[in-house]
Amino acid sequence: MRAVDIIQKKRDGQELARSEIEFFIAAYTRSEIPDYQASALAMAVFFRGMAEAETSALTEAMMRSGEVLRWDDLDGPKADKHSTGGVGDKTSLILAPLAAACGLYVPMISGRGLGHTGGTLDKLEAIPGLRVSLSLAEFRAVLRKCRLGLIGQTPEIAPADRKLYALRDVTGTVESLPLIASSIMSKKMAEGIDALVLDVKTGDGAFMQALPDSRALAETMVQIGRGMGKRMAALITDMDQPLGRSVGNALETAECIESLKGRGPDDLVSLSIELAAWMLHLTALTPSLEAARARVRDSLASGAGLRKFQEVIELQGGDPRVCDDTARLPQACETLELRSERGGRVARIGCRAVGHAAMLLGAGRETVQSAIDPAVGVVLHKKVGDPVAQGEPLATLHVNERKRIDEVQGILRDAIRVEAGVPAPAPLVRLVLD
Amino acid sequence: MRAVDIIQKKRDGQELARSEIEFFIAAYTRSEIPDYQASALAMAVFFRGMAEAETSALTEAMMRSGEVLRWDDLDGPKADKHSTGGVGDKTSLILAPLAAACGLYVPMISGRGLGHTGGTLDKLEAIPGLRVSLSLAEFRAVLRKCRLGLIGQTPEIAPADRKLYALRDVTGTVESLPLIASSIMSKKMAEGIDALVLDVKTGDGAFMQALPDSRALAETMVQIGRGMGKRMAALITDMDQPLGRSVGNALETAECIESLKGRGPDDLVSLSIELAAWMLHLTALTPSLEAARARVRDSLASGAGLRKFQEVIELQGGDPRVCDDTARLPQACETLELRSERGGRVARIGCRAVGHAAMLLGAGRETVQSAIDPAVGVVLHKKVGDPVAQGEPLATLHVNERKRIDEVQGILRDAIRVEAGVPAPAPLVRLVLD
Repeated sequence: MRAVDIIQKKRDGQELARSEIEFFIAAYTRSEIPDYQASALAMAVFFRGMAEAETSALTEAMMRSGEVLRWDDLDGPKADKHSTGGVGDKTSLILAPLAAACGLYVPMISGRGLGHTGGTLDKLEAIPGLRVSLSLAEFRAVLRKCRLGLIGQTPEIAPADRKLYALRDVTGTVESLPLIASSIMSKKMAEGIDALVLDVKTGDGAFMQALPDSRALAETMVQIGRGMGKRMAALITDMDQPLGRSVGNALETAECIESLKGRGPDDLVSLSIELAAWMLHLTALTPSLEAARARVRDSLASGAGLRKFQEVIELQGGDPRVCDDTARLPQACETLELRSERGGRVARIGCRAVGHAAMLLGAGRETVQSAIDPAVGVVLHKKVGDPVAQGEPLATLHVNERKRIDEVQGILRDAIRVEAGVPAPAPLVRLVLD
Repeated sequence: MRAVDIIQKKRDGQELARSEIEFFIAAYTRSEIPDYQASALAMAVFFRGMAEAETSALTEAMMRSGEVLRWDDLDGPKADKHSTGGVGDKTSLILAPLAAACGLYVPMISGRGLGHTGGTLDKLEAIPGLRVSLSLAEFRAVLRKCRLGLIGQTPEIAPADRKLYALRDVTGTVESLPLIASSIMSKKMAEGIDALVLDVKTGDGAFMQALPDSRALAETMVQIGRGMGKRMAALITDMDQPLGRSVGNALETAECIESLKGRGPDDLVSLSIELAAWMLHLTALTPSLEAARARVRDSLASGAGLRKFQEVIELQGGDPRVCDDTARLPQACETLELRSERGGRVARIGCRAVGHAAMLLGAGRETVQSAIDPAVGVVLHKKVGDPVAQGEPLATLHVNERKRIDEVQGILRDAIRVEAGVPAPAPLVRLVLD
């Protein structure tokens, strides 16, 4: 088999055989196939797409390029959630402790933010001392102790995906449904879980902005997972405004702690409960989805979720006192209020723009190499549909560097639109695939 | 400017600006843009194509990546011919001496054969001692002395094309009209010529097998050349049977010498005269195309073309006595006759198959790295339309290695079809673009 023949076959619109995909990925992982052939294949896939069988084969080949975790020693079901990423999307830090408190094992391997989106790892690292780069042995030990572990992709997990993902980022081949789906699923399937709930974002702040695209991505990932014998569900959820009120790493972590104390914003709390309930439901920990919701709500109300979060923070080297006092999280030097120039109702909050503004303040990465500032970000005081009086604060900016502050304020002013009419609120969960 | 943005722009079907193409090629030449980005761009071009202005910009950028020859010291017009390659296509060795004998300067930079096709350099190297890898200084000296120089692409000429061509070969991005056209033209335009005649092959043995594709390639190259202020013409010529009778390097060189002595096959001689006449006509060395043809015929009849060939061979270190005695060229150990199993007329000679058979005998390269045997090949005794008696020889195989001889004989037996009817002969020149 020759790499160039496989590239040409895909280029000419033919379906690749499983053996061809396995050959390509295995040789690419060992660097026997160079990056320039992988990027040519990725671009051909961008134009030609992949059939279901090809996408599954690619996922499995990337998963098998590294270690696939096994948890034979654990006495209960293992489940995880994956989000395709958005702005203020911080449900992992709420639902993972809640699900673990309900009896699930949650071996969560997360990613970092890029561009206008945030990442779970960055939010966790806002907690002083907390390490997300555990070895697999440490990860196993943490999970065994508290049913929950929160780490980043290790070199052992899906190394082919690591290489290909970095390559796609610089070769214009990110926006390909089969490449996105197989990248996500190769990592998640390597976690050795029984069930996976997908939170596929749709709308202005999501990677897939149109509902049909989000749905196609969700369906592809559900098919891949089922083909590998996993219980799967996908919720397609709204990303036309930020989730919750905070955008920025420490601000979001604080909001998660508040949520676990029962004081979180409605949208964030209800979506976190819903996703955790699906994890319980898929693994049959409860007799019904409704029973699962009740159980998760109980864990929230009793404080069991908060205690679980505190436990995992301590096990991963972090300062557990942040759960008692969120002021122990990094704080910005100053805050600036953005006030409404008119009265009315919030008609629209440009979600991508808010993410972009937070990134410019230092909360996100313009490129993979950029450093981030955990303390900075934006807190929204109003959500879509809320009434606003003239001069009332719309948002608070948490700022350490004033360098680009005019630009940031301009972006936010344009992003948050106050009008006279009352907009119809979009439902948070747009579609459920199960 | 970032390479990834340029890749994405082309991927999304937008037209690249000249400055973007210049940036990409200049940075790629200096290896500041890596191969994996160049191959992704090449694949995007494969799918999206290029507008006329983009193809011109790409050609010029690749040309300017290296040295562009200047011949200010020469006292007459400079012209060249380029063929897109075929089987038995050896006109360069005939028309270049003829054109030089008529007073043109011919600074010819040629390539090697690949797959079923032959290359001018390989045919020249069949002449004992002859060097095609002259330095540019040596090339200038030879050209100044005898109006003719025959070399291969040097490291100074279009280095961006050298890199990109090698990359395309292993990334499934060879078959792209703008990439083919710009690759050819970047080298030819670097020769510093005033006029270029293109011989674009069409038919079974050509890279572009369908006439519309050949025509599109010809038109693109003519446009590029004219845009750079060159006088251009393109002949689209038949490659549905080999040109002349010999396929194999020394055999073809011998056939060229015979042709320069007035004893060549009709098709080869008439096409060589026609192409040389167009070179004279474009540079206005003669008052009309008809006058140009007459002048080229005179140079052939007088032996001036043969003497010119002998002169350039000697100047480039080769043994000029091959022109007196072609037996001084490498000879194969043995010859085998392929005889017709039936009487009739030759209905078809599978051109690609004959080229493939010659390659298997050792005359061509299966990959860029393969070594070739100058002595071996195939000599056809019949052309399409010729009458054949049962048992009469159709071809002679010149063989050094019998290893794959059965396969070769089988291929040739299938390739040369003798039938009862008389086929209509295809015209040699299918179309002229001027």
